[in-house]
Amino acid sequence: MIILLTDFGPGEYVGVMKGVILNLDRQAIIVDLCHDVSPQNIIEAAWILKNNYRYFSAGAVFCCVVDPGVGAQRKALAVKTDTYYFVAPDNGLLWETLKKQRIVEIRQLFIPPEASNTFHGRDVFAVAAAKINQGCFDDLGEIIVEIERLELHQHEREGLVVRIDRFGNIITNLRSQGKSRYSVEIDGKKYQMEYYPNYSAAQDDELFLIEGSHNTLEISLKNGSANKKLNLKTGIKIEIL
Amino acid sequence: MIILLTDFGPGEYVGVMKGVILNLDRQAIIVDLCHDVSPQNIIEAAWILKNNYRYFSAGAVFCCVVDPGVGAQRKALAVKTDTYYFVAPDNGLLWETLKKQRIVEIRQLFIPPEASNTFHGRDVFAVAAAKINQGCFDDLGEIIVEIERLELHQHEREGLVVRIDRFGNIITNLRSQGKSRYSVEIDGKKYQMEYYPNYSAAQDDELFLIEGSHNTLEISLKNGSANKKLNLKTGIKIEIL
Amino acid sequence: MIILLTDFGPGEYVGVMKGVILNLDRQAIIVDLCHDVSPQNIIEAAWILKNNYRYFSAGAVFCCVVDPGVGAQRKALAVKTDTYYFVAPDNGLLWETLKKQRIVEIRQLFIPPEASNTFHGRDVFAVAAAKINQGCFDDLGEIIVEIERLELHQHEREGLVVRIDRFGNIITNLRSQGKSRYSVEIDGKKYQMEYYPNYSAAQDDELFLIEGSHNTLEISLKNGSANKKLNLKTGIKIEIL
Repeated sequence: MIILLTDFGPGEYVGVMKGVILNLDRQAIIVDLCHDVSPQNIIEAAWILKNNYRYFSAGAVFCCVVDPGVGAQRKALAVKTDTYYFVAPDNGLLWETLKKQRIVEIRQLFIPPEASNTFHGRDVFAVAAAKINQGCFDDLGEIIVEIERLELHQHEREGLVVRIDRFGNIITNLRSQGKSRYSVEIDGKKYQMEYYPNYSAAQDDELFLIEGSHNTLEISLKNGSANKKLNLKTGIKIEIL
Repeated sequence: MIILLTDFGPGEYVGVMKGVILNLDRQAIIVDLCHDVSPQNIIEAAWILKNNYRYFSAGAVFCCVVDPGVGAQRKALAVKTDTYYFVAPDNGLLWETLKKQRIVEIRQLFIPPEASNTFHGRDVFAVAAAKINQGCFDDLGEIIVEIERLELHQHEREGLVVRIDRFGNIITNLRSQGKSRYSVEIDGKKYQMEYYPNYSAAQDDELFLIEGSHNTLEISLKNGSANKKLNLKTGIKIEIL
Repeated sequence: MIILLTDFGPGEYVGVMKGVILNLDRQAIIVDLCHDVSPQNIIEAAWILKNNYRYFSAGAVFCCVVDPGVGAQRKALAVKTDTYYFVAPDNGLLWETLKKQRIVEIRQLFIPPEASNTFHGRDVFAVAAAKINQGCFDDLGEIIVEIERLELHQHEREGLVVRIDRFGNIITNLRSQGKSRYSVEIDGKKYQMEYYPNYSAAQDDELFLIEGSHNTLEISLKNGSANKKLNLKTGIKIEIL
């Protein structure tokens, strides 16, 4: 099974990656995890992968392409852990996920000279994912030991906005402190927000905190978009007290 | 076969539901019917399901998650009709579809205490759909007999805007009266509109009526977006004369 | 294998086409190439198909629905080449792709009287694709010999903007001339642009040229959207010197 995670959006780039995979392995099961990562946003991709990979079966191959350095000198990686496989550019995207597993082997993908300088998703990563799915991890390139480590900032009660979803929920990497009311500081501005156990408990038109599906705090608005009010971006620092 | 209908948009929520399903049933065929329902818009979801379920094979499992009440007290349902299965929150979403079939049995899904309060799509509905697809409908929870009934308003020539599509077509639940010209009232404003059998017959820049693919009237604009001109939302009342 | 290319966006239209296909052929492998073609934009669809069809296996059936003339008199086509099958409205969409292959046979699809006048994707093209995928090309309708030919304009150093992608890259159908700097004229305005081998080589906030994944020139902006600056549409003429 091959799971795709990219910032390619709804265009043809994902479709052609599937063509490449199915051309090499007609029986491959391909699952779209998400192609809606903000363009070039490695933090967002790292967060999505870290929180969702464990919902897929052991042996799954995650093909993750958020790649501002495509065509330049950054390495391309294939990683085998005790449970899964991952291919991705070497830009930190995988680190938060790999931290939680035992890394068995890392290989540096060979980049063929005819690969496009702008689309390694098609010419490098999709090919590698298909080959791993067929059991050929060892043929992909030389073993390496060091890769980029990108940690999502979190220190006591200070963390990051890691994702803003379709409903306008502002997702953070901060754990609930079990309080019923928080002081929240974002970008130098302070807000007082109630904590509710579910959306229904909130008042209309009131920004509030809720525990999201990955057990971290989210800023929400009942039947509306919290981020229409706050207009934040992933990567911004947030502090709760 | 499992068919997904949600308001989750292009983010990772649908992808992780697929992971959950495939983790339980690696051979499951999963089809995305639509994830583009306006956030929390039960009317739109009810319309899409009602008009499209019959294009899928008998035995299909429809997993429908538009769920403003997630985490609160609303029930979660699994419904078996003489032809299909449906899982959904008990908020009326299924009613227009169930009306057209013979209901065999309704069960109230058990919600495990570890389920997230914000994402029953992953923790409740995807799990139930996978189990039904494997033949385990009877294990899902207690039999119940009453469920929420949400009727899409329609009385003589008054109905609703039930969907606005990507092209800006404004879809209503009103049948054509066979006239070549209609008086249309929306939100207190009156319009005169011609009826045409296809888009090509219309003039440029003219709002007109056409019979859509579910045999109801739509307001359209040739090679353009009718809703850029009218700026409506689903759920608004519409009257034709 | 059936590959879908439409301008239907994220709504339910693609999902119901899949229902129709799977209802006729439960084992069909269906791949979404792209549903994000700008509404009614035949040039964009022609470009996407022309550049991506060859990444799919021989025998694949391409089901292409960008169809401003739906319900009017335009023909509906099924085309067999020496390698692939294509179904599409007869509006030129297929021509740039067919030019590169040997056409074996063209048939005019029979349009049943009960087909919707607004949704041949569901009632004509999905049905035809499923039948071809099951080996029934010859039953689809009468043999014809002439079809619409739409050439993407290209004359010396003058061509078209053929696609604008999610990242804001402006894709043209012009080949690189091997220069390190170009004079670019679009819509009567002139720009000087450097050519770089990859995104990293560019300066921040600088519009530049790069060779895209189909070996044509693209206007790009490092870590940003070139088209936020230029605000172009596909189909506009572009000249390089």
